[in-house]
Amino acid sequence: MVYLDNSATTKPCDTAILRMHKTAETLWANPSALYSFGMRAHDLLDEARQTVAASLSCREDEIIFTGGGSEANNMALKGVAQSRKKRGNRIISTAIEHPSVLKTLDFLGENGFEIVLLKPQHDGTVSPEQFAESVDQNTILVSAMLVNNEIGSVHDIAGIARAVHERNPNTLIHCDAVQGYGKLPIYPSRLGVDLLSASGHKLHACKGIGFLYVRKGLTITPLIHGGGQENGRRSGTEALPLIASLCGALQELPKPEEQLAKQQDLFNYAVKALQPLNFVSINSPNGCLPYILNISVNGYKAEPLLNALSARGIFVSKGSACAKGHRSYVLESCGLNNDRIDSALRISFCRDNTTADVDALCDALTAITKTMRKYR
Amino acid sequence: MVYLDNSATTKPCDTAILRMHKTAETLWANPSALYSFGMRAHDLLDEARQTVAASLSCREDEIIFTGGGSEANNMALKGVAQSRKKRGNRIISTAIEHPSVLKTLDFLGENGFEIVLLKPQHDGTVSPEQFAESVDQNTILVSAMLVNNEIGSVHDIAGIARAVHERNPNTLIHCDAVQGYGKLPIYPSRLGVDLLSASGHKLHACKGIGFLYVRKGLTITPLIHGGGQENGRRSGTEALPLIASLCGALQELPKPEEQLAKQQDLFNYAVKALQPLNFVSINSPNGCLPYILNISVNGYKAEPLLNALSARGIFVSKGSACAKGHRSYVLESCGLNNDRIDSALRISFCRDNTTADVDALCDALTAITKTMRKYR
Repeated sequence: MVYLDNSATTKPCDTAILRMHKTAETLWANPSALYSFGMRAHDLLDEARQTVAASLSCREDEIIFTGGGSEANNMALKGVAQSRKKRGNRIISTAIEHPSVLKTLDFLGENGFEIVLLKPQHDGTVSPEQFAESVDQNTILVSAMLVNNEIGSVHDIAGIARAVHERNPNTLIHCDAVQGYGKLPIYPSRLGVDLLSASGHKLHACKGIGFLYVRKGLTITPLIHGGGQENGRRSGTEALPLIASLCGALQELPKPEEQLAKQQDLFNYAVKALQPLNFVSINSPNGCLPYILNISVNGYKAEPLLNALSARGIFVSKGSACAKGHRSYVLESCGLNNDRIDSALRISFCRDNTTADVDALCDALTAITKTMRKYR
Repeated sequence: MVYLDNSATTKPCDTAILRMHKTAETLWANPSALYSFGMRAHDLLDEARQTVAASLSCREDEIIFTGGGSEANNMALKGVAQSRKKRGNRIISTAIEHPSVLKTLDFLGENGFEIVLLKPQHDGTVSPEQFAESVDQNTILVSAMLVNNEIGSVHDIAGIARAVHERNPNTLIHCDAVQGYGKLPIYPSRLGVDLLSASGHKLHACKGIGFLYVRKGLTITPLIHGGGQENGRRSGTEALPLIASLCGALQELPKPEEQLAKQQDLFNYAVKALQPLNFVSINSPNGCLPYILNISVNGYKAEPLLNALSARGIFVSKGSACAKGHRSYVLESCGLNNDRIDSALRISFCRDNTTADVDALCDALTAITKTMRKYR
């Protein structure tokens, strides 16, 4: 198997699985229980929160565990909207956010909020200036993703936060960092964000765990009300085995800066290896995160290509896993024509990938395009 | 260890843990991915949905997986409120619901809904007639728990649904079945409910998984918007290892009817064994689910008792794990005086408990009360 769809999900690392297993087996008490067994479960929860906080150089009480990145994004946007609706109703974001942001904004738009979605420039980013131009006194929230999930373009979050705050210091900043967490060094305080979402399964933890960073002092309306877990901010019995799996994954994570250089080498190798294939165009912009390489295989539709690659044990995706069956709005927003969009494949790497994987992909694309009929 | 806090959480069974482990290890693809590996993950998701649907004799497309019971309750109440707010604004429930219902209703109450909370009778239930009396043409939803989590009283959900529908056939019925699922035979169509919540970790699955049953044909606003998973009703990459763990737990679950008889024997044994302890009063009403036995140890405060039991390796709870630190509103609503409430312990059983566990508890209570000072 050549797995090149790491932006959809990653293989859980052994440590993540073992920690999950061990926690489920030995520390299965309810962390809210008052007896010793429950308190030991709560200690593990505290430790896990420390581990996550350390990864962001933030305070422990700024981390709220969620069921994943989508829940974190929904919680951030709806939570701010609900708690700040008396201060204003404009929310600004980009046209290339993940569906868990865009669909949530659609929902808020239907419920009295004015949603402004900025179109990216050709490099797949919205500039700090573009954000600043749209910010007014009515703007309660700006939400921008750190790394785009389809093309890997990277937003200048710190620059966006500065530019926005120059126009309106009361505007909150949310960053969907699902595709960047663990890959780029991320420090919310340096980025100047108030809220930041991340997901475990994108960095070799198991599925069903994520978190929302909420800056100390900021209170937002919970998405899930109830027993008051997570300091009253996200109710429901804590999924301790999954939280342990996230910590296991963080423990195995190389330093983002160091790994980034290696991934850049692999990315460059891939770009070079694809060059002789004259039917391939690169869609990822310069300066993109070297974990995501979006290409178009000109003249061929993505889905049959993907199936042919799958038959050879090579797994890549057509856009994102979350936009199944639709034409990529990300590539559309970046100004690509329909032919190019319809033949787009996303190749996404992780630390386990090697040049041999890239070679296998290139060989397969060469072989497949020799026999597959062009679609026009 | 004598674990008697199974209403807070249960020990995951071996099958649940192994299935979770195996799925994380071998079938970690994103179920939305279009290649063979992703499709195999999706097949497992389909199978899991069949298993859960079979347990309720309902359709597969009526099951929506969630991150737990609290999320399911929030999704049901907020989803109905949001999608039916033009039809009416009254929501009726009971004063003894779980916090994930009560706090959600508080939130809805602050947002324009009229919340009616009915007080239970002395048996810890609200009667169908009480519900019917409060239902008007403006009532969009009635929410009633199947089994109360502190005293085990069982609502006549089918009777409530009938009585409510006689008054207003358009009122939707939600049942929080978290403490009943897997213990009582539950068939939503026979109960006449439109929505039903359940949680995995109360029945020996791992934490972080639950589901909401939504009757075919009923559409409610999602709580988590995004990539459109769960047929557009709950977005976020599916937590397949946890879903597999739920199926593992269901596989090991004895037939509810058969197990119920055994639990009734154990419950009766416990009541009889506690009888000679003249300082103990039983708070659970007649006809309660024999998995939950609420008692008061008269003259002693619950917390030091709980700690003394914990020191002996016996784990029970003071009210529910979700109401940590507060006086039980459930016992208050049932008309118990403060002394009785302050000395209340919840003993909750599972299929693994034996009469030896009950004996150990009785011996410990006898020993502890001999040396512990009464609080007045």
